[in-house]
Amino acid sequence: MNFLEEKIAKEGTVKEGNVLKVDNFLNHQMDIPLFNEMGKEWKRRFAGKPINKILTIEASGIGIACIAAQQFDVPVVFAKKAKSINIEGEVYVAEVESFTHKCKNQVIVAEKFLTPQDHVLIIDDFLANGYALQGLIQIVQSAGATVEGIGIAIEKGFQPGGRVIRNLGYQLESLAIVEAMDWKTGAITFREQG
Amino acid sequence: MNFLEEKIAKEGTVKEGNVLKVDNFLNHQMDIPLFNEMGKEWKRRFAGKPINKILTIEASGIGIACIAAQQFDVPVVFAKKAKSINIEGEVYVAEVESFTHKCKNQVIVAEKFLTPQDHVLIIDDFLANGYALQGLIQIVQSAGATVEGIGIAIEKGFQPGGRVIRNLGYQLESLAIVEAMDWKTGAITFREQG
Repeated sequence: MNFLEEKIAKEGTVKEGNVLKVDNFLNHQMDIPLFNEMGKEWKRRFAGKPINKILTIEASGIGIACIAAQQFDVPVVFAKKAKSINIEGEVYVAEVESFTHKCKNQVIVAEKFLTPQDHVLIIDDFLANGYALQGLIQIVQSAGATVEGIGIAIEKGFQPGGRVIRNLGYQLESLAIVEAMDWKTGAITFREQG
Repeated sequence: MNFLEEKIAKEGTVKEGNVLKVDNFLNHQMDIPLFNEMGKEWKRRFAGKPINKILTIEASGIGIACIAAQQFDVPVVFAKKAKSINIEGEVYVAEVESFTHKCKNQVIVAEKFLTPQDHVLIIDDFLANGYALQGLIQIVQSAGATVEGIGIAIEKGFQPGGRVIRNLGYQLESLAIVEAMDWKTGAITFREQG
């Protein structure tokens, strides 16, 4: 097991309905040294890619993306989930369904923050059905920018998001891929990664 | 002018309705080296305080809080704006009005992440009317924890939030306090800080 799988095995808990609770360290309380390890691992896996910007989505992607950005020396842009009066001018929009909240959100990025010159690393905390990620990819493509790679903390390997994204040819690096989990026993099985 | 005031003067823009747009570097695209400078300045201003946790609120506080947390070697907890199915058990709740979105939100923090033993630094990007901040203070108090200080990036000094918080006796450290701004000329006036 790598450092993140060990953390999940130790501190994550499985709840009914395929819910993996990692709010101790990932998406409510945030373990900053752990995020730094994640950033270093993505830097290793995306070595040589001409990444000049990280794109994530509010809210729980932001902390991970900001800490990881220190490894790449690049700014972070986060996609916003609702129209704000402070965003004006032209924006890229994608519609995203939320697994957690059972609703649809529009996510937006101001056009000025993504251009055809940008080489983007997308970062998020979870990948399950992949709707949020597909929305972010769509936004990068709308800008004419390039998706250099996708870094995910935890992928639910038994849901289709990861397969779809890999089939599309993207370099998707999930630091932990959960193959199965059992809320009755609490057991979590990870996919072997080379 | 300090480093943040200089950044605001150079890259911020003033819009009608007392809107200060700093989305180039603070709350849509995020300038990580700038956040590091902010963290160092708060570390200096809160030197000697027994801070063991940073509390912020989604979304735009998260990145600043995570980078600042590296100066304090503490975890970050972010208050969430809506009930999520992934939050269960007991939560602290406060009701918060949003200046930006003209609506009320419930903000919540899981009880397990704030205890009477916690000495909390609250971090956020903006302080205007102070509703969000009052909600966070209320949550810390509900937990029986101690507010050791409050770090704000940009305070709108012509709105009442900062005065209320200082009158209550909290150490509030706003790195830039905007005394006045004029959307017709673009002029921004900062309060002199000792």
